[in-house]
Order: sequence, then structure tokens, then C-alpha cells
Amino acid sequence: MTLILYERLCADDRRPSPYCWRARLALAHKGLKPDEYRAIKFTEAEKVGFSGQGKVPVLVDGDEVVWDSWTIATYLEEAYPDAPSLFGGERGKALARFVNHWTNECLQKAFAPVVVPSLHAVTHAEDQDYYRETRETKWGLTLDDMRAQRGERITALHQTFAPLRELLAEQPFVCGSQPGYADYLAFGEFQWARCVDPEDLVPAEDKEIRTWRTRMLDLFDGLARQVTAFDTAA
Amino acid sequence: MTLILYERLCADDRRPSPYCWRARLALAHKGLKPDEYRAIKFTEAEKVGFSGQGKVPVLVDGDEVVWDSWTIATYLEEAYPDAPSLFGGERGKALARFVNHWTNECLQKAFAPVVVPSLHAVTHAEDQDYYRETRETKWGLTLDDMRAQRGERITALHQTFAPLRELLAEQPFVCGSQPGYADYLAFGEFQWARCVDPEDLVPAEDKEIRTWRTRMLDLFDGLARQVTAFDTAA
Repeated sequence: MTLILYERLCADDRRPSPYCWRARLALAHKGLKPDEYRAIKFTEAEKVGFSGQGKVPVLVDGDEVVWDSWTIATYLEEAYPDAPSLFGGERGKALARFVNHWTNECLQKAFAPVVVPSLHAVTHAEDQDYYRETRETKWGLTLDDMRAQRGERITALHQTFAPLRELLAEQPFVCGSQPGYADYLAFGEFQWARCVDPEDLVPAEDKEIRTWRTRMLDLFDGLARQVTAFDTAA
Repeated sequence: MTLILYERLCADDRRPSPYCWRARLALAHKGLKPDEYRAIKFTEAEKVGFSGQGKVPVLVDGDEVVWDSWTIATYLEEAYPDAPSLFGGERGKALARFVNHWTNECLQKAFAPVVVPSLHAVTHAEDQDYYRETRETKWGLTLDDMRAQRGERITALHQTFAPLRELLAEQPFVCGSQPGYADYLAFGEFQWARCVDPEDLVPAEDKEIRTWRTRMLDLFDGLARQVTAFDTAA
């Protein structure tokens, strides 16, 4: 059966989408290697129109077409029950969903005003107007506002790390002794930053988060390292 | 065997401590009913000095003395493995720990500037100076500052609910279809507010959180209703 993951493409073959990283790492966790990563620009939504919508990630697994990162994770958990579990049972799935919402509502919102202007700079030329307009609307700030506020936004971002930082001071992964889907959720945001921002947005003193990020980059034979990124993250 | 839970006492027999509510509900989840709730004032730390420290909750279970709400929960999970699980396995425990840190770092920090002055008003007379001094130091704001900022702090509090609100729009409990320790973690903060603040700090439009709070108040024959509180929370 053919396995294809559609994901987002930026300049220099960058693959920054945090949602797509959730899917990439979920597939690897299940021991699945896509036959192809099919990367599309922001303005190429029609290329995943066969899924009934225009966003990535979209997973094509033989005859199955699945979109939305959470739906892909739950699909993989059900379709591949004998492979390592992404959630570790119903309780773990319910609480991973909390981590999903915390990632979207807190971590991503804190990263966005810093990362979005950097991502804009590495979108393909034909995507730049689209990306600017949709993100300025989504986040309620212009790219210029975001750039002007960068310093204070980075300070606020570091405060947002607090529960993650406290957790990782006690255990190697968000999911405990081994990584799982909740790790991929949070890590996707750090990878988003790493793929597009020339500055390392995790300060040197944030040892717990840096160490965890390195562990995450090491997973699956360095899957998350094998893409174009800035080399700030060790 | 004698089972005693030491907890915090305020005026009118109020029991506001969120950490003690974590322990109270964890005991009830395990089907354990303390022979006695032994409530102590802030300035009566010596009454739990036998535990080697001065904070509540302290659980005395026969010959075992356990303090710190997380340690109590993990103790109960191991000591009573045949009773309903608080964590639902290792993955659930690891992720509950994330909810613990989110509760402490985000939810409690957002509630505190609103709730602390209200709690001060219902501490026993001999506790008021101690409570004021320790809390002004802990939160870096005077009680007068907190009161002056109440309106904006309530707005910020409601924003902090975001990941919990999104989760509870999808599932009845933080832990999924049934309540577990992660529910008790978050609920403790709402109960803290409910026990001391005359105003309902969950707005009427926050239906998901209100409905969950009602479910939590209904648990264990209404355990969390059977204490002095303001009647704002249905």
C-alpha cells in the first residue's frame, strides 16, 4: 500500500508546519515510513482538494485519505494497534488532547508573533501575500507590529514554557520515560521555529527544554534534523 | 486503620486550600473516607510538625504519614491498586503531571490575584498578618494592588481557561469519559475560588467549564458541596 504525507513547503525545501511535524513524528512512532512526502505551497490548496478541504497535513494510506493532525494520530492508533502506542490508552489519549489544546492556545500563540515574520521571509515568492494576509488576520497583528514587538514577545514566550519546563525537569519526555504523541504536539512548535527563525528561541539557561529538544531531534534516526533549518538548535 | 487528612481551616469552617481538595478528591476516588478531617489554621504549622514539615495536606494512613498533594496521590495509587485508578497507568500519570504543572504555573497564578484578597477576608483573625505577608511575597503584589487590578485580572483569568475550555467542549472530564486526578488538579483551583470569593469567577458564557464544575461538585455524593462556600457556583 502506498503511504503519502502531504505537508507544507517553503523556500529552500523548508518544511516548517507544526501540524505536519505532528503527523511526521506520529508516523515514525508507528514505524511507518511514507513512500513520499509531497510538499505543497500555501497557494496550492487544490493539490489536496481530493481530501475535501485545502489544509495540510493530509495522509493517504492506500485507499484511506485522512486530514487534520489529531485525526491522523487517532487514525494511526486504530489502524496500527500492534505498533507502539501513540497515546498509551484512553486516559493518555484524553490527556494528550489537553496537551493539544495547550499547544494550540498557549504555546503556538506565544511563538506566533515571533515566528510568523521569520516564516514569511522564507515563503515562496508567490505565497508571500497570501501568508501575510491570512496570518495578520489570524493573529490580529501586522507583520510589522510583530517585528516591532519581537523582544517583549520572546520574553512572554519564555514564560509560556513554564509548565513544560517544570515537567521536563522531572522526566525525560512529556509522556514520561518514553516519547509519545504529547511530545510530538509540543515539539512541533519548536521545530516550526527552528525551521524558519535564525535565532534560537530557547535560551541557553532553559536547559530542560533544550535537552528535551535535542532528544526529540535525535528520535527516529534524526528525522527532524533531516530538513532545512537554522543550525541554532543543537 | 485510622485515616486522617490534615487540611487548611479558615473562618466559618471554610476549607479553601486547592492542594487539600486534590487530596480530598483523590481519597474519595479511591473509595476512602477519612475518619477525620483535621483542619488547621495558617499559624498552626506545628500541628503537622510530626510530618517533618509544616504544610497541608498531610495524610495519616495508619502508620504512614504522607505530605504534598502529588505525593499523596501517588501514594494512594500504589497503596490501593485495586481501587479505581487515579492516573490510568504510567502514561496517564506522566501527563497528569503536566496538568499539575499547568495548574500551578498558569491556572493558580491567574486565580491568585483575584482570590487571595478574598481569602484574606475569611482567614481567622490571628492568621491575617501571616497570610498577607506570605502571599504578598509569593505573588509579588500587595493585597491592595490585587484589589485595584481585580477587573483586568479576571479578564486575564478567563483567557487562561482556554485550553481547559477547548478540551471540555469535546469530553465531559479532563481525563475523558470519567474523572481522574487531572480533573481534581484543575478543579481544586475553582473550588478555592468558590470557597472564598463572593463572585462567581466563571462567567455565564463559559458553559463548558460551568457544566464540568457542576459535574465535579456532584461527584462522591456532592463531597465538594458539603463545605462552607459562596452559593454562586450552581
